[in-house]
Amino acid sequence: MTFHRAYGFDEIALATSDITVDEADVNIGVSIADIKLNIPIIASAMDSVCSPSMAIELGKLGATGVLNLEGVHTRYEDPASILKQIASVSNTEYVTTMQTAYQKESIKDHLVERCIKTIKAGGVPAIVSSTPQRASHLGPLAAAAGANAFVIQSTVISKHFYSSNESKKLDLEAFCASMPIPVLIGNTATYDATKSLLSTGVRGIFVGIGPGAACTTRGVLGIGVPMATCIADTAKARDDYFAETGTYVSIIADGGIINSGDICKAIACGADAVMIGSPLARANEAPGLGFHWGMATPNALLPRGARVEVGSIADLKTILLGPSSSDDGSLNLAGALSTGMATLGAKTISEMQRVKKLIAPSLQTEGKLYQKTQKLGMGKH
Amino acid sequence: MTFHRAYGFDEIALATSDITVDEADVNIGVSIADIKLNIPIIASAMDSVCSPSMAIELGKLGATGVLNLEGVHTRYEDPASILKQIASVSNTEYVTTMQTAYQKESIKDHLVERCIKTIKAGGVPAIVSSTPQRASHLGPLAAAAGANAFVIQSTVISKHFYSSNESKKLDLEAFCASMPIPVLIGNTATYDATKSLLSTGVRGIFVGIGPGAACTTRGVLGIGVPMATCIADTAKARDDYFAETGTYVSIIADGGIINSGDICKAIACGADAVMIGSPLARANEAPGLGFHWGMATPNALLPRGARVEVGSIADLKTILLGPSSSDDGSLNLAGALSTGMATLGAKTISEMQRVKKLIAPSLQTEGKLYQKTQKLGMGKH
Amino acid sequence: MTFHRAYGFDEIALATSDITVDEADVNIGVSIADIKLNIPIIASAMDSVCSPSMAIELGKLGATGVLNLEGVHTRYEDPASILKQIASVSNTEYVTTMQTAYQKESIKDHLVERCIKTIKAGGVPAIVSSTPQRASHLGPLAAAAGANAFVIQSTVISKHFYSSNESKKLDLEAFCASMPIPVLIGNTATYDATKSLLSTGVRGIFVGIGPGAACTTRGVLGIGVPMATCIADTAKARDDYFAETGTYVSIIADGGIINSGDICKAIACGADAVMIGSPLARANEAPGLGFHWGMATPNALLPRGARVEVGSIADLKTILLGPSSSDDGSLNLAGALSTGMATLGAKTISEMQRVKKLIAPSLQTEGKLYQKTQKLGMGKH
Amino acid sequence: MTFHRAYGFDEIALATSDITVDEADVNIGVSIADIKLNIPIIASAMDSVCSPSMAIELGKLGATGVLNLEGVHTRYEDPASILKQIASVSNTEYVTTMQTAYQKESIKDHLVERCIKTIKAGGVPAIVSSTPQRASHLGPLAAAAGANAFVIQSTVISKHFYSSNESKKLDLEAFCASMPIPVLIGNTATYDATKSLLSTGVRGIFVGIGPGAACTTRGVLGIGVPMATCIADTAKARDDYFAETGTYVSIIADGGIINSGDICKAIACGADAVMIGSPLARANEAPGLGFHWGMATPNALLPRGARVEVGSIADLKTILLGPSSSDDGSLNLAGALSTGMATLGAKTISEMQRVKKLIAPSLQTEGKLYQKTQKLGMGKH
Repeated sequence: MTFHRAYGFDEIALATSDITVDEADVNIGVSIADIKLNIPIIASAMDSVCSPSMAIELGKLGATGVLNLEGVHTRYEDPASILKQIASVSNTEYVTTMQTAYQKESIKDHLVERCIKTIKAGGVPAIVSSTPQRASHLGPLAAAAGANAFVIQSTVISKHFYSSNESKKLDLEAFCASMPIPVLIGNTATYDATKSLLSTGVRGIFVGIGPGAACTTRGVLGIGVPMATCIADTAKARDDYFAETGTYVSIIADGGIINSGDICKAIACGADAVMIGSPLARANEAPGLGFHWGMATPNALLPRGARVEVGSIADLKTILLGPSSSDDGSLNLAGALSTGMATLGAKTISEMQRVKKLIAPSLQTEGKLYQKTQKLGMGKH
Repeated sequence: MTFHRAYGFDEIALATSDITVDEADVNIGVSIADIKLNIPIIASAMDSVCSPSMAIELGKLGATGVLNLEGVHTRYEDPASILKQIASVSNTEYVTTMQTAYQKESIKDHLVERCIKTIKAGGVPAIVSSTPQRASHLGPLAAAAGANAFVIQSTVISKHFYSSNESKKLDLEAFCASMPIPVLIGNTATYDATKSLLSTGVRGIFVGIGPGAACTTRGVLGIGVPMATCIADTAKARDDYFAETGTYVSIIADGGIINSGDICKAIACGADAVMIGSPLARANEAPGLGFHWGMATPNALLPRGARVEVGSIADLKTILLGPSSSDDGSLNLAGALSTGMATLGAKTISEMQRVKKLIAPSLQTEGKLYQKTQKLGMGKH
Repeated sequence: MTFHRAYGFDEIALATSDITVDEADVNIGVSIADIKLNIPIIASAMDSVCSPSMAIELGKLGATGVLNLEGVHTRYEDPASILKQIASVSNTEYVTTMQTAYQKESIKDHLVERCIKTIKAGGVPAIVSSTPQRASHLGPLAAAAGANAFVIQSTVISKHFYSSNESKKLDLEAFCASMPIPVLIGNTATYDATKSLLSTGVRGIFVGIGPGAACTTRGVLGIGVPMATCIADTAKARDDYFAETGTYVSIIADGGIINSGDICKAIACGADAVMIGSPLARANEAPGLGFHWGMATPNALLPRGARVEVGSIADLKTILLGPSSSDDGSLNLAGALSTGMATLGAKTISEMQRVKKLIAPSLQTEGKLYQKTQKLGMGKH
Repeated sequence: MTFHRAYGFDEIALATSDITVDEADVNIGVSIADIKLNIPIIASAMDSVCSPSMAIELGKLGATGVLNLEGVHTRYEDPASILKQIASVSNTEYVTTMQTAYQKESIKDHLVERCIKTIKAGGVPAIVSSTPQRASHLGPLAAAAGANAFVIQSTVISKHFYSSNESKKLDLEAFCASMPIPVLIGNTATYDATKSLLSTGVRGIFVGIGPGAACTTRGVLGIGVPMATCIADTAKARDDYFAETGTYVSIIADGGIINSGDICKAIACGADAVMIGSPLARANEAPGLGFHWGMATPNALLPRGARVEVGSIADLKTILLGPSSSDDGSLNLAGALSTGMATLGAKTISEMQRVKKLIAPSLQTEGKLYQKTQKLGMGKH
């Protein structure tokens, strides 16, 4: 059997070198689809994470977020009351509540326009997303409303989509060519799939399929690519394509990133930026009001997700910029990335993508140490 | 030490490619021993899973089941009362109850015939099984009664059986040649053992030895072959034999399949269909009445199994065809396979057998993520 | 780093082949140092496992045991009262109690003789052991008293022992040559160490260092060789030595064997027999009265063990020969070995040593399956 | 993906050879920076582990400790009251208490001098440490006060430190050349980083980054090198440098060492000595009064550690020299090293560095065995 071994974040660690850098000289900024980010963090296109006001707040802090154009904000005049309702029902009721919320009201063009204009009025770039099915309609609409970039996102996207129904097909190349603003797509997970998508004209590709623990795609469908391998392979496709054509397409790691250490690892594996959900859903300002759910949860035939209570632990600014009062990697995400890069001798994101990675499964070692540690105390820090 | 590494379902994951398929164009149908199945799922030949009425229901939904001719249905005029009794006694009593139930009454030819005719009268194919010891008698009897296929099944079967007692030997080639209906056998687990069985004239081979968690064959005998490797190796024997002879013999993955993700993986590793027990024992219609047990449990000298309370979670139709209201891969098994194949770019079972597999141990990664997730929330879906 | 990977019992599994054997034709007998055993099981030289009466009972059932000549039976006229005392004190008292018990009274020659004569009077072979320090005295004494074989056993033994104190050295070759009965030694764990011991004239070598879970040698000293690799490597040394010299020296796997599956694996890895402690300490007849402890537990400076309550689960006969009423591999050890060999197509211990082994870590797979199984039920058996 | 696999202590085990040594002939002594140690153990430069009086006690027993010149002993006339306060506050208060304690009072030169003179007056060598930022001032001050060696230590140190602020840079070569006493540095973790540091004139290098379980560097920054690989790689750099130049620089394993087995493994991997914290913080004499914390815990922006209650289990003498009354490797650390070396056939630390290492993950095997053992008892010791 010649299956390849793939690694997750928890199976790797970053190794120091013979260079360290003064943290004052570290620059974690990056440019994604002509949008400059001081912090390479993008909030997930999920209703529990990104609303127009959250997008504004993220942008002001140097990060950004993607507003899902198929969520509650484009269906309801008063999305806050819907979000409040989802947060208030019990665990046995939320599937029905969400199915109703996402099916009762259709997506309204004027709300799409209003959302984008609201974000722009906040003085930050507006990035919005839709599924491939609605991209032909929502893409031009978003561009006309002033969006800075458009994301086509589904669980898995590919260059080649086979269907006997021609109307279901979306010609990615034609779509990108027709759009006056940058297009990004996702998700994909392997070298070949990424390589074939790079030539469609997209400016960024979201990578990551089924890596999350609460994500049940792997249990339900058997599908999943551990993130460290996923990022390393897709980043190599990006680098090879750049060497061949001179065109640089950003790779954004999306999924399974839970703490600041994972952000460091994602970029060290080759990502240009990260898309994160649950770490930001815990902000006091998050639209989910202490809850988090995926956009596949309301699926009527084959739900693959759940509503999880994540709580509200701090202001968004503290989560992104600190200071941290905890040692679990949940606060000061940008500061941790700066410190990690300084420690690893990387002045820029580009240098961080080339630091040394080790395969070092943490569970085996740390699991046992942890038990001992409960009794014995702690190692050196 | 040159032992080979073998992998279980939980150690692999399926990876997407540069092709996806419209789920409307996916065909999960397959033909096993000339029996066409719309769903490549076969219920185990266990009394807790398959009865004549369950076989009919399975057939009507597009799947099938194997009726064990050595179980309660061929020993008792009123098997329902026996099954009710097994389900009603306590954990300390069931071994004795089952030993008595399976030894007190002998197998009766007229009940064998009646069972087969009942299934046929339901308008679906009848597949029945016996151990090698009783195959010479029950095989011709089943064929005469109208069975569509006959399965010889024991924990382990081999081409060569050494015994100083000639009467104990079964000549598989002669048996297959003499039978007017297709013969399938099982179980086996390795390339060589499968290769030597392929030339006996059988139409299908069940593969899988000791993979289940509750199965104690590995603890008691030290024997077991993890399923992903088992299926990949035996499927390669099938393919090599087909290339050499032009004869295609079906490989049916049997054991350790617990959720829909495992079904996707089994077929991706090379299986033509899957035989499953516990997922179907949970149907409201299952003869086990919420309990499940293997046919080795009543063994008087060396029991290797237990009666497990699995509960009744849904109608058989919901388990097979959905819609699902859970995210654990227990409902809508066929729908999950369709969605998985569409996502992986496979239009047919044959294409699904060739998708990319990764070695990606889930416990190491997910174990830790899960703990984090309890506090932090969930990844993207 | 070029460290070699080593495997434990739980990391391997045995794979079936294209041959199976009628269990009636399986012979699990073996000859160790001219002593014929119907069952290749030797009880550990521990006071909780082997007494003169236990040795007689084991011999009558076809197995054997090694009596430790440095334990309570050669120190006390009435060892039963000492064993009763050890079994009766609390967990905070037993170390002191045992230190006293093993240091207060010296070893007495007449008790050594009496123990051996008692065993012989029971009509079975007498195998006895001592540490290297006392071998020069106890060896000839045991032989004169009628012992059939003498075992020199310490945690680790080697051909070369460096000491500036010449009186501490034991010349193994001279000792073996001087002894009128077969000599066996232990323990060792690697190819080289075993190879150099094979030429000393010993008839058997016990292999296994620090594999047990409750054994804290690995935690305290960092030393340990996982058993599957240990047995495979030392058995290869035996086979190479046999090919070179024509002399066959038995390899006895000693340590970490907890259930019947482990016995099957130990022999499949190359052992001629197994030495087991805790599985036999659970016999109603065991001298430990439901408790089990190693001979290193009373060590005053660096204890490496504990007294563990194992309980008394069945008669010795049931543990060895069945029938089993449990599915955890604790009963019918000989029957499980027979069934395992039949299933694997091995008629003799020699054939069993050559069956196919797989690396198949059970925890990763079974751990997760087990959790699922608690809810879902069980696989096929 | 070509990441290298790295191993932690719990993933390796030491294997015996064909030589054993009389423990009376084992010498565990070593010389580090011209300081002779009868026991190759150095207490961590943490306030919970090393005070002037603890350094004296360690020296008298044959070990040594490093006094952190940036801790409470050089900030307060009465450090005992501060340590008592840290030990007395609740888990919700200690971060604030420690931040205050370490920031309210500055480091005072006369206290630095007094600490060093106190240790020297105790008749043992004085080893002291500072961060790179304060080395230029504290180094000469310590040397003038009579210190025997000076340690520059931060989480990660490198030969090359990039900063646009020239005043932040420390020229290691110039510093070493200017100091009248030996200089040691740390920490580093890889071959290349160590190789480049070896030529700066330092006499010892502390190796180990983020290996501890309670250490959250890996979770927060993603950075960490498992210790077995870390030591083996850095020791190889030392050996290569020695072969090239004839200069031997000591490698001291620092981090993740929790029991005596870990000490044996650290030296077997190539370390000349070990630096340990929590095992010594458990001494009755330890300044932490039953608590342990790292020097990164009070960090205001990104804390990476916690105060852990380790308890006080025995006198320092019993922890170092025994006798042991426990079997968990927490007592008689020197005795365990002696016994381990005797068992492995190593007479000196230099021979111990070359014993055979195995990759033998303990969790997989022992985890399962442990569960069984709870019911079944224990293996042989």
